Amino acid sequence: MPRLVMKFGGTSVANMDRIRNVARHVARERKAGFDVAVVVSAMSGKTNELVGLCQDAAKLYDPREYDAVVSSGEQVTAGLLAAVLQGNGLPARSWQGWQVPIVTSNAHGSARILDIDGSALLESFAEGEIAVIAGFQGVDPATRRVTTLGRGGSDTSAVAIAAAIKADRCDIYTDVDGVYTTDPRIVPKARRLNRIAFEEMLEMASLGAKVLQVRSVELAMTHKVKTFVRSSFDDPEFPQPGTLMCDEEDIVEQQVVTGIAFSKDEAQITLKQVADHPGVAAAIFMPLAEANINVDMIIQVASEDSVTTDMTFTVPGAEFERTKEILLKAQPQIGFASLHGASDVVKVSAIGVGMRSHAGVAARAFKALAEKGINIRAITTSEIKFSVLIEAAYTELAVRTLHSLYGLDKG
Amino acid sequence: MPRLVMKFGGTSVANMDRIRNVARHVARERKAGFDVAVVVSAMSGKTNELVGLCQDAAKLYDPREYDAVVSSGEQVTAGLLAAVLQGNGLPARSWQGWQVPIVTSNAHGSARILDIDGSALLESFAEGEIAVIAGFQGVDPATRRVTTLGRGGSDTSAVAIAAAIKADRCDIYTDVDGVYTTDPRIVPKARRLNRIAFEEMLEMASLGAKVLQVRSVELAMTHKVKTFVRSSFDDPEFPQPGTLMCDEEDIVEQQVVTGIAFSKDEAQITLKQVADHPGVAAAIFMPLAEANINVDMIIQVASEDSVTTDMTFTVPGAEFERTKEILLKAQPQIGFASLHGASDVVKVSAIGVGMRSHAGVAARAFKALAEKGINIRAITTSEIKFSVLIEAAYTELAVRTLHSLYGLDKG
Repeated sequence: MPRLVMKFGGTSVANMDRIRNVARHVARERKAGFDVAVVVSAMSGKTNELVGLCQDAAKLYDPREYDAVVSSGEQVTAGLLAAVLQGNGLPARSWQGWQVPIVTSNAHGSARILDIDGSALLESFAEGEIAVIAGFQGVDPATRRVTTLGRGGSDTSAVAIAAAIKADRCDIYTDVDGVYTTDPRIVPKARRLNRIAFEEMLEMASLGAKVLQVRSVELAMTHKVKTFVRSSFDDPEFPQPGTLMCDEEDIVEQQVVTGIAFSKDEAQITLKQVADHPGVAAAIFMPLAEANINVDMIIQVASEDSVTTDMTFTVPGAEFERTKEILLKAQPQIGFASLHGASDVVKVSAIGVGMRSHAGVAARAFKALAEKGINIRAITTSEIKFSVLIEAAYTELAVRTLHSLYGLDKG
Repeated sequence: MPRLVMKFGGTSVANMDRIRNVARHVARERKAGFDVAVVVSAMSGKTNELVGLCQDAAKLYDPREYDAVVSSGEQVTAGLLAAVLQGNGLPARSWQGWQVPIVTSNAHGSARILDIDGSALLESFAEGEIAVIAGFQGVDPATRRVTTLGRGGSDTSAVAIAAAIKADRCDIYTDVDGVYTTDPRIVPKARRLNRIAFEEMLEMASLGAKVLQVRSVELAMTHKVKTFVRSSFDDPEFPQPGTLMCDEEDIVEQQVVTGIAFSKDEAQITLKQVADHPGVAAAIFMPLAEANINVDMIIQVASEDSVTTDMTFTVPGAEFERTKEILLKAQPQIGFASLHGASDVVKVSAIGVGMRSHAGVAARAFKALAEKGINIRAITTSEIKFSVLIEAAYTELAVRTLHSLYGLDKG
């Protein structure tokens, strides 16, 4: 029988009525002839509640205990969905990560899946059972302790399980009905994409689109898992197809730009009048690297005094304060006149595998944004995307401008 | 180092403040030089909430999924207590049943502990850690599925772990400060016992005293686990000793009667004018045995017609309706004129190992109850206890009468 992995997130299993609705989606696919593995998240709100308890328990809580506590949410959903399926006459059993087993690294709280032994799941299929698997969790075999994969980890669980059991398809059910050319709340003319290339989805996810966890897209790309993003709120009898993540060559009508993403989780740092001598970049960025702070866009321009340079770069918004502290502490070693920071910035990106074969795609954007009076503070480009850093107040205007510019508006 | 098992029930870990209080009790014992294993229940109310979800999920829910869901409650408490202990500078780690492992039968929902491998816990002790173990749960190794032990199962977990690691002591912390001669809410003059013999505690638990789960007492008796029942609401700095369960010979001042128990969970059935022929008892009780209904007190008396007999017996209150149905269905085979039932009955019992060596203990009770106008509907006796079935309205009067009669009142 063909095999299918279906993944349902927290809002899709938020209460018993929604879990019963999920069971109807599962029943439909089972009826269509699939062996089905369902991956579920915790009921929405549950994980936050458990995290709150952990924070209350100890200021610096042990991530291993955090995992033991927080992983219980998915376990409950899995058991309940299995019971609902059984109640509807469909044989089913729940699986916790360690029961499969889903073997992970020991990086508690953000563990990586290392290996999934699919044989027990396949035996369960052979007995006619639907496998309902707790997402977001695994086990470190050395200590037999439960691990979690970090927020959104259930997407990764689903794709990894699909790869392990060589599923014909992996359907990620969310509260939206697919991947859009950009966030429809910002651009009402945004269109749902029927298909998106793995690499584009990877950039979209990395650059701020919140549809899928980055790691899950990487896995889907590496293992060529045919993955759909679709809505759990569709009528289970008349589901919409959603968006298919696939190889570039499987997309017939390739656009130059496929989507516009934006991320508000950015902060900009400028060091004024940095002494322009060899090794100064290392002096600035080594201490940040050691503190695990990810530096993204970097520009260096001559200062007004024509002797020193000004160095501008971005870091994740959450690291803004820490970055400033570290740099001010290192000021004597680095040698700069002053530090300026801004957290009211946003990174807007355009993504499309078509950029590989088209020149001047980014240049058109710079011109269009300038015409709207939007000042570009920094730029980064890669083979299939470019990003600009702008003042946050211009987010909507910039996203809409680029969305129209590249012919993504619907209708 | 000497080893101690400490068990805390649901009300003792009902919220983070109480969990912090539990941590203080644990810290005290650790400081006193014990290697400590702590067994915890789910936060009170949690198990009922999870059971409610299961019942909502499917009318006839799979007990294996019930166990997967319900066992999560203890797992959360264990993780939180471990985190609190760590926060107080005490190395600790949480253990789920399968991690220890606590091997049980596959009777999901009421599994029996078959074996506990204490070696991982002892290694953890050797590393200076406090072991915080999720009570009430284990694992069926054949299916790798989580099992639960049934209500109150955490007591059993604690005693079984104490036996497995050869603990010097097992302290069961509850919301009362020990075992009383009877329920102090009924008899304000009830006294806390300093010591109680295992066998007496077993009868007390079986006959309605709700202090400990019967199975935990059996285990303590079999493995000679020195077990205290004590209060988690004592000041952690100045704890009271509670009640010690011990061998009969370790109790110096043995009373004839140690305690009075009562159970309201009883129903009485009377079959009138049963044809008095060989095999009639089997015709009545076999169908009940097959339906797993536990028949307790049985009396047979001649009917008014002097030809047939009247048969009276008791069943658990929860089985009252089912028992009546089964018997009415079997009426043609059994042959009786009418069935009369009553659920407003109570079983009052007096327990004491001293009864072995004293005659006429029960007879004094019958006389005293008769003097108060209390009608005895059925009697059972064993070596160390006797029980009477009476009308429920007389419960308090009967319990107080017997409590005074055997010199158990304090002051």
